[in-house]
Order: sequence, then structure tokens, then C-alpha cells
Amino acid sequence: MDSMTWIAVTSIVIAGITTGFGTMGPALAEGRAVATALTSIAQQPDASPTITRTLFVGLAMIESTAIYCFVVSMILIFANPFWNHAIAQATGN
Amino acid sequence: MDSMTWIAVTSIVIAGITTGFGTMGPALAEGRAVATALTSIAQQPDASPTITRTLFVGLAMIESTAIYCFVVSMILIFANPFWNHAIAQATGN
Amino acid sequence: MDSMTWIAVTSIVIAGITTGFGTMGPALAEGRAVATALTSIAQQPDASPTITRTLFVGLAMIESTAIYCFVVSMILIFANPFWNHAIAQATGN
Amino acid sequence: MDSMTWIAVTSIVIAGITTGFGTMGPALAEGRAVATALTSIAQQPDASPTITRTLFVGLAMIESTAIYCFVVSMILIFANPFWNHAIAQATGN
Amino acid sequence: MDSMTWIAVTSIVIAGITTGFGTMGPALAEGRAVATALTSIAQQPDASPTITRTLFVGLAMIESTAIYCFVVSMILIFANPFWNHAIAQATGN
Amino acid sequence: MDSMTWIAVTSIVIAGITTGFGTMGPALAEGRAVATALTSIAQQPDASPTITRTLFVGLAMIESTAIYCFVVSMILIFANPFWNHAIAQATGN
Amino acid sequence: MDSMTWIAVTSIVIAGITTGFGTMGPALAEGRAVATALTSIAQQPDASPTITRTLFVGLAMIESTAIYCFVVSMILIFANPFWNHAIAQATGN
Amino acid sequence: MDSMTWIAVTSIVIAGITTGFGTMGPALAEGRAVATALTSIAQQPDASPTITRTLFVGLAMIESTAIYCFVVSMILIFANPFWNHAIAQATGN
Amino acid sequence: MDSMTWIAVTSIVIAGITTGFGTMGPALAEGRAVATALTSIAQQPDASPTITRTLFVGLAMIESTAIYCFVVSMILIFANPFWNHAIAQATGN
Amino acid sequence: MDSMTWIAVTSIVIAGITTGFGTMGPALAEGRAVATALTSIAQQPDASPTITRTLFVGLAMIESTAIYCFVVSMILIFANPFWNHAIAQATGN
Amino acid sequence: MDSMTWIAVTSIVIAGITTGFGTMGPALAEGRAVATALTSIAQQPDASPTITRTLFVGLAMIESTAIYCFVVSMILIFANPFWNHAIAQATGN
Amino acid sequence: MDSMTWIAVTSIVIAGITTGFGTMGPALAEGRAVATALTSIAQQPDASPTITRTLFVGLAMIESTAIYCFVVSMILIFANPFWNHAIAQATGN
Amino acid sequence: MDSMTWIAVTSIVIAGITTGFGTMGPALAEGRAVATALTSIAQQPDASPTITRTLFVGLAMIESTAIYCFVVSMILIFANPFWNHAIAQATGN
Amino acid sequence: MDSMTWIAVTSIVIAGITTGFGTMGPALAEGRAVATALTSIAQQPDASPTITRTLFVGLAMIESTAIYCFVVSMILIFANPFWNHAIAQATGN
Repeated sequence: MDSMTWIAVTSIVIAGITTGFGTMGPALAEGRAVATALTSIAQQPDASPTITRTLFVGLAMIESTAIYCFVVSMILIFANPFWNHAIAQATGN
Repeated sequence: MDSMTWIAVTSIVIAGITTGFGTMGPALAEGRAVATALTSIAQQPDASPTITRTLFVGLAMIESTAIYCFVVSMILIFANPFWNHAIAQATGN
Repeated sequence: MDSMTWIAVTSIVIAGITTGFGTMGPALAEGRAVATALTSIAQQPDASPTITRTLFVGLAMIESTAIYCFVVSMILIFANPFWNHAIAQATGN
Repeated sequence: MDSMTWIAVTSIVIAGITTGFGTMGPALAEGRAVATALTSIAQQPDASPTITRTLFVGLAMIESTAIYCFVVSMILIFANPFWNHAIAQATGN
Repeated sequence: MDSMTWIAVTSIVIAGITTGFGTMGPALAEGRAVATALTSIAQQPDASPTITRTLFVGLAMIESTAIYCFVVSMILIFANPFWNHAIAQATGN
Repeated sequence: MDSMTWIAVTSIVIAGITTGFGTMGPALAEGRAVATALTSIAQQPDASPTITRTLFVGLAMIESTAIYCFVVSMILIFANPFWNHAIAQATGN
Repeated sequence: MDSMTWIAVTSIVIAGITTGFGTMGPALAEGRAVATALTSIAQQPDASPTITRTLFVGLAMIESTAIYCFVVSMILIFANPFWNHAIAQATGN
Repeated sequence: MDSMTWIAVTSIVIAGITTGFGTMGPALAEGRAVATALTSIAQQPDASPTITRTLFVGLAMIESTAIYCFVVSMILIFANPFWNHAIAQATGN
Repeated sequence: MDSMTWIAVTSIVIAGITTGFGTMGPALAEGRAVATALTSIAQQPDASPTITRTLFVGLAMIESTAIYCFVVSMILIFANPFWNHAIAQATGN
Repeated sequence: MDSMTWIAVTSIVIAGITTGFGTMGPALAEGRAVATALTSIAQQPDASPTITRTLFVGLAMIESTAIYCFVVSMILIFANPFWNHAIAQATGN
Repeated sequence: MDSMTWIAVTSIVIAGITTGFGTMGPALAEGRAVATALTSIAQQPDASPTITRTLFVGLAMIESTAIYCFVVSMILIFANPFWNHAIAQATGN
Repeated sequence: MDSMTWIAVTSIVIAGITTGFGTMGPALAEGRAVATALTSIAQQPDASPTITRTLFVGLAMIESTAIYCFVVSMILIFANPFWNHAIAQATGN
Repeated sequence: MDSMTWIAVTSIVIAGITTGFGTMGPALAEGRAVATALTSIAQQPDASPTITRTLFVGLAMIESTAIYCFVVSMILIFANPFWNHAIAQATGN
Repeated sequence: MDSMTWIAVTSIVIAGITTGFGTMGPALAEGRAVATALTSIAQQPDASPTITRTLFVGLAMIESTAIYCFVVSMILIFANPFWNHAIAQATGN
């Protein structure tokens, strides 16, 4: 395996793992937040606007951690500086 | 194993693992959200429209993390830039 | 082991693992949703139509993550682009 | 080990693992669903027809994930396209 | 190790693991179902016929997943197509 | 290591592991079932005949999964078709 | 390492592991059963004969799974057919 | 693999893992904080300003640990001193 | 490493592991049983003779699984048939 | 791989892991502390100044452990004595 | 590494592991037993003689499993038959 | 890799791991202590001086274990006797 | 690596692991015992002499298992018979 | 790698691991003890002197296990008999 293949292979592996595992935490956390929102609404229907507003702010912050992972994956697949350097070096050679 | 085979093999492996494990979290989270929705409806049947509406918004956000994983898998199988580069290099050679 | 065998072997391995492990999460989540539906019906028999309707929508969304896994497995076994490319290359040679 | 043996061996391994581990989730989920059905019946004997009906629908959906695993195992043992290709190639040679 | 030995060895390994681990889930699930049945009978002795009937249906469905594992083990030991092919090839040679 | 030794060694390993780990699930499940039976009797002494009858049926079904494991172990030690084939081949040679 | 040593070594390893790990499940299960028996007696002293009788039947069934493991260990150490075959072959040679 | 490839590969791997796993803890912690905020609002709607204010301060501190991970990933991809040294050495050579 | 050393080394390893890990389950189980006995006595001091009697029977049965492990360890260290055979062979040679 | 590459590679790996995993504990701990603060405010709104003050002191101490990890990562990337020694040795050579 | 070193090394390793891990279970079990004894005394101060007596008997039995581990460690370090045999063979040679 | 590189590499690895993992326990413990302090203040506002005083003493003791880890890391990076010996030997050579 | 180095290295490794992991169980157990003692005193201040006495006896027994581990570590570092034998052999040679 | 390097490397590794992991248990245990002390004071403010006294005795005993680990680390780094012997041998040579 030459250098470019190594970089390609590890980029593929890590892009998949980062998204695959990194979304596990946010998914579970969002599930928990949604679940408590529902019980809270059932318990106090009058406070549902405050609850849903707080819920959406919270979901946005939790989703942000999932998006960090997705961004890293996309950078590794489509804007990988090490890969670009390797291609530049290969064509420049 | 030459370079193309390595890239093909790791793409297959990671496509499967990303979807296989990455959907575990969302599935459990959705199960939890649905379960609480049901208990909430049973506890407060009058609030069922608010509850189901909040539930569907929440499920959509949780499902989004599962879709990130599925998208990464599909990119790795059908729109893999490293594979395309390798094919281009092989045919151009 | 030549290239084709490597691709065949990893396709088999990942097809099995993706389905075998990827259905674990949805199964547990569905079990949880069904279980809560039953307790909710027992607790509030009058709301059973709303409960079963919400349950089926929820089960459909959870099942969708299991189906992502099954779809990836089937793609890897029966519509694998890397395998098709390898066969094309082998016969074209 | 030649190519055919590799394919045979991995098919055997993955067929076993997919069924052996993939049925763990559904079994636990069904156990949970059945358990809650029983407590629900004990708590609200009058609702037992609704409960058992919902239980059977739910068990069917959970069982479906176990059946995905079993189907993948059977495909790998008895209708494996990679194995068929290998045999065709071996006899055609 | 020649091809036949590899196939024999992996068949033995997977037959044991599939049964050994695949029965763990069903056993725990059945234990849970039986346990809840007993508490339900103690709580509502009048509903014991409905409870035991639902219990037996549920145990049958859970046991079915254990039987999938046992069937795969038996197929791998006594009706293994890869082994049969290997023997046919060895004797036909 | 020749072929026969490989088969003997893996048979020994898998026979032990299948029984050693496969009985863990049933043991825990039986412990749970017995424990609940005892609390149920303490809670509702009048229903003890129904409880013990249901308990014994349940224990029998749980024990069956332990027996699958033991049967596979015994088959691998005393009625192993791969071993028999290897001996036949060795003596027939 | 010759064949006999391999068989001896794996027999020793598996005999120990089967007993060492296989007794873990039964021990925990018996601990649970005994613990519940004690709380049940404390809760309902009049039902102590029924409770202790059910307890002993249950302990016997749980102990049986521990004994399967011990039996397999003893077979592997003192009545190992593969070892006997190897000795027979060695002396008969 | 030469030195530069090793550095590139490990930078890719660690950038992915640090973000992928390092966001798991913060995501779960934020989910927990949001969930408790919602139950607290439902329980004491009058205190919702204090609660949301404390929640946002807490989320900011938890998010800070996720941002440490993201910062380390970005440093490793775009401002890696070891990579810069290697490039400098390569071009200077 | 010659054969005798292999047998000695694995005997030492397995003797330690069997006792070291095999006593973990019984210890935890006994701790649980003793703990419940104490709460039961505190809850129902009049039933303390029955409780302690049942406790001692139960501890004896749990201890038996720890003793199986200790017996296997002692057999492997002091009455190991494979070792005896190896010594006999070495001296008889 | 020469010495400098080894040091660079391990510094990258450990810098990522230390931050990635080391922030997991603090994140979860802060989530727990914030969550309890919210329930405490909801339960006793009058004590909210004391609660938020104690919360911030506690968060500061927990955050300190996350900062230890971040500091170690930064030292390894930007002020690594082993790397400096290696560079000094390389240039001095 | 010659035979004696192998035996010495594995004896050291296993002696440490057996004690290090084997005392984990008893320690936790004793902690549990002592904890329950304290709550029981607080709940029923009059029964403290019976409780402490039962506690000490129980602690003795749990401690016995820790002592099995310690005994095996001491045997492996100071009365190891395999080591004695190796020394005898070395000096007798 | 020569000796100095080995020592440098392992020092880097262990310095990171000791801090990264060793602060996990203290962080969680402090989170727990702070959380209980908050609930205690909410429950008994009059005792808040005693509670905060005890909390700070406790946090100090828990933090001490995190500081042991940090100290070991710093010793390994900046005052490593093995590294100093290696440098002395290298320069003295 | 010669024999003495192997023995030294494994002695170091095992001495650390035995103490490092072996004190985990006792620490947790003592934490539990102390925690329950405190709740018991809070619940029944009059019984505090009996409680603290029983607590100290229990802590002594739990600490004894931690001391077994520490003793084994000290024996391996300062009174290791295998090391002494190796030194004797080396100097006597 | 020569002998001295091996001993240095393993000493570094084990010193870090022993402290890094060995302080995890005590930290969690102290967190638990402090947490219960706080709830106990909140529940029974009058008993706070007894509680804090018992707490400090308990913390001291738990801290002792953390100190065993720290002592072993320090011995391995600064008073390692195997390292001293190796240096003596190296200089004496």
C-alpha cells in the first residue's frame, strides 16, 4: 500500500466511525429530552409553550454536537488537507 | 491486495458499520420517546394533540442523526471520492 | 487471496454484521414501545385508539432504522458496485 | 486456503453470528413485551382482548427483525451469490 | 490446514457459539416473562387462565428465536452445504 | 498441527465454552423465576398451587435452552461428524 | 508443540474456564433465590414450609446448570475421547 | 509508509476519534440537564426564568468540554505542528 | 518451549484464573444472601431461627460452586493427569 | 519510522485521546450537577442564590479536571520536551 | 526464554491476578453485608446482637472465598510443584 | 527505535492516559457530591453552612486523587528519572 | 530479553496491576459501608455507638482484602523467590 | 531494546496505570461517602458532629487504598529494586 492509499483508507474509516458512533450520544440525549418534555406537558399542560421552547433550544445545542461529528466526517471526505497535499505531491511529481 | 481493493474493502466495511451501529442510538432514543408519549397520553388524554405534535418534531430530530449515518454509508458506496480518484487513475494510466 | 475474494469476503461479513447487530437496537426499542403501550391501555382503556395509533406510527419510524440496515445488507450482497466493478474488470480482462 | 474456502468459511461464520447475536435483541424485547402484557392483564382484566391484540401486533413487528437476521443467514448458506460465482468460475474453468 | 479442515473447524466453532450465546437472550427473556406471570397471578388470581394462556403464547414466540439458533447449529453440523461440496469435490477428485 | 488435532482441539474448546457460557443465561433466568415465585407465594399463599405449577412449566422451558447447549457439547465430544470423517479418512487411508 | 500437547493444553484451559465462569451464573442465581426466600419468610412466616420447599426445588434446578459445567470439566480432564484416541495412536504406533 | 504518511494518518484517525467520542459525554450531559429543566418547569412554572437562566449557564459549561475536543481536532487537521515540521523538512530537503 | 513446560504453564494459568474469577460470583451471591438475611431479621425478629437456618443452607449451596472451582484448581496443580502422563513419558523415555 | 516520527505520532494520538476521553467524565458530572441544581431550585425557589453559588463553585472544581486533560494535550502538542530534545538533537547533529 | 523462566513468569503473573481480581468480589460482597447490617441495626436496635452474630458468620464465609484466592497465590509463589520439578530437573541434570 | 525513543514514547503515552482516565473518577465523584449538596440545601436551607463546609472538605479530598494523577503525569513529562538517566548516558557516552 | 529481565518486567507489571485494580473493590465497598453508616446514624442517632463499632469491624475486614493485594505486590517487588533464584543462579554462575 | 530499557519502560507504564486507574475506585467511593454525609446532615442536622466525625474516619480509610497505589507508583519510579540492580550491573560491568 502506498501513501495515498493509506490516507484514503483511514479517511474512509474515520469518516464512518466518527459519524456512526458520534451520533449515538446525541440521539440518546435527544430521546431523553423529548421524553421528559412529553411527561412534563402531560403533567402541566398549561406550561407547554415554555416547555416546547426550552426543549427546542436544548435540542439545538445537543444536535450541535452531532453536527460537529458530521462536519469532521465531511471535512475528511471532501476537504481533507492531507489528501490534497498527497494529490498535489503526486501530480507535481 | 492492490490500492483499489483496499479502498473497496474499507468502504464496504465502514458503510456497513456506520449504518449498523449508528442506527442503534436513534432506534433506542425513538423507542424511549414513543414510550413516554404513550404514558403521557394515558395520563393526560386531553393533551394528546400537543403531545403527538411534540413527539413528531422530536422523532424527526432524532431520525436526523440516523439519516446522517445512512448518508455517509451511501456516499461511501455510491459517491466515494477516493474510489473515483482511484478509478480515474487506473483508467487514465 | 486475490482482490475479488477479498471483496466477496468482506461483503459477506459486513452484510451479516450490519443486519445482526443493527436490528438489536430497533428490536429493543420496539419492545419498549409495545410494553408501554400495553401498560397505558391497562391504565386508560378509553384512550386505546389514540394509543395504538401513536404506537403504530412510532413502530414504523423505529422499524425504518432496522430497514436501513437490511437495505445496506441487501445492497452489499446483491447490488455491490465494488463487486460489479471487479467482475467487469475480470471479464473485460 | 484458496478463494472458495475463504468464502465458505466466512459464510459459515457470519451465518452463525448473525442468527446467534441478532436474535438476542428480539428475544429480550419480546420477553419485555410479554411481561408487561401479563402485568397489564392482571391490573385491568377487562381490557385483556385489546391488550392481547396489541401484544400480538407488537410481537409480530419485533419478530420481523429476528426474521431479517434468519433470512440473511439462510441467504448466506443456501443462496450465496459470491459462492455461486466462485463455483461457476471453478467449473467453468 | 487444508480446505476441508478449515470448513470443519469453523463449522464446529460457529455451531457451538451460535447455540451457546444465542440461547442466552431467550433464556433471560423467558425468565422475565415467567417471573411477571407469577407476580400477576399472585396479584390477580382470578385472571390466571388468561395469564397462563398469554404466557404460553409468548414463551412459544420467544422460544422460536432460540430454535432459530439451534436450527442453524444443526444445519452447520449435519447439513452443511459447504462441507458437502468439499466432500463431493474430494471424492470426485 | 495436522487436521485431526485441529478438529479435536476446537471441539474441546467449543464444547467447554458452549456449556460454560450457555448455562449462564438459563441459570440467571431460573434464579429470577424462582425468586418471583417465592415473593408471590409470600404475597398470596392461597394461590401457591397455581404459582408452583406455572413455575415448573416455566423452569422446564428455560432449562430447555440450557439443554440445547449441553446437547451441542455432547454432540461435539461424542458424536462429532467431522471427527468421525477424519478418523474414517485416517484409517481408510 | 506436538498434537498430544495441544490436546492436553486445551483440555486444561477449557476445563478451568468452563467451571470458573460457568459457576458464576448459578452462584448469582442461587444468591438471588435465597435472598428472596429470606424476605418472603420475613414477610409471611406462616408460609415458610411452602417457601423453603419451593426454594429447594429451585436451587436444585439452578445447581443442575452448574453441574453440567462441572461434568464437562471432569469429562475433559478424566474421560477425554480425543486424548484417549491420541494416546491409543501414540502407543499403537 | 514514510514519516509524513504516518503523521497524516494518525492525525486523521485521532481528529475523528476525539470529536466522535469526545462529544458523547457532553451530549448525554446536556440531554440530562435539558430533561431536568423541563421537569422542573413543569413542577414549578413560576421559577422558569431562574431555571432557564441556570440551564443556559450549565449548558455553556458542558458545551465547553465538547468544544475542547473540537478544537483539538481542528488543530490536528489544520494547524498540526508536527505536520508543519515534516513539510518544512521535506521542502527544505 | 517443550511440551512439559506448556502443560505446566497452562496449568498454572488456569488454576489461578479458575479460582480468581470463579469465586467472584459466589462471593457476590453470599453477600447478597447475608444482606437480605439481616434486613429480614430486622424486619421480623421473631422469625430469626427460620431465617438463619435457611440462610446457612443457602450459603452452603452457593459455597459449593466456589468449591467446584477450588477443586478444579487443586486438581490442575496437584493431580493433573496430563502432567503425570508427561512426567511418566519423560522418565520412561 | 525514525525516532522523531514515533514521538510525533504518539504525541498526536495521546493529545487526542486525553482530551477526547478525559472530558467525558467532567461533562457527565457537570450534567448531573446542573440537573440537580434545577430540581433543587424548582423544589425550593427561595434558596436559589445559595444553590447557584454552590453550583458554580462545584462546576469550577469539576471543570478543573477537564482542564488538567486539556493542559496535558496542549503540552504534548506545543511544549513537548521529548520532541524539543529530538529536534535539538536532529539540528545539532 | 527457557522453561524455568516461563514457569516463573506465569507464576508471578497469575499470583498477582488471582489475588488482585479475586478479592474484588469478596470486598464488594462484604461491603454490601456490612452496609445492610448497619441499616438493620438502625431500623431495629433491639435485634443488634442477632444481627451482628449473623453478620460475622456471613463475613467469615465471604472472606473464605478471598482466602481461597490468597492461598492459590501463595502456593504459586512459595510451593509451586511445577517450579520445584523444574529446579529438581535443572540441578539433577 | 532506540532506547531513548522508547522511553520518550511510553512517557508521553502514560502521561496522557494517567491524566485522561485518572480524572474521570474524581470528576464523577465531585459531580455526585455537588449534586447531593444542592438537594440537601434545597431540603434543609438552614443547614447550608454545615453542608457547604462538609462539601468543600470532601471535594478537597476527592480532588486530591485527581492531583495524584496529574502529579504522576508531570513527573513523567518533566522529571522522569529514566529519561534523565538515558540522557546522561547518551551525553556521557 | 534474557531471563532476569523477563522476571523483573513481569514482577513490576503485576505488582502495579495487583495494587491498582485490587484496591478498587475494597475502596468501593468501604465507600458503601461508610455511606450506609452515615444514613443509619442520621436515622437512629441513639444507636450510633453500635453502628460505628460494627462499621469499624466491617471496614477492618474489607481493608484486609486490600492488604492481601498490597502484600502480594510487596512480596513481588522486595521478596520475590523467582528473582532471588535468578540472582543466585547469575552470581553462582 | 536492551534489558534496562525494558525495565524503564514497564516501570513508567505501570506507575502511570497504577495511579491512573487505582484512584478511580477511591474517588468514586469518597464521592459516595460525602454525598451521603450531606443528605444525612440535611435530614438530621443535630447529629452533624457524629456524622462528620464518622465521615472523616471513613474518608481516611478509603484514601488509604488510593495511597497504596500512589506508594507503589513512587516505589516503581524512584526506588525500583530491579532498576537499581540493572544500573549496578551495568556500572559494575
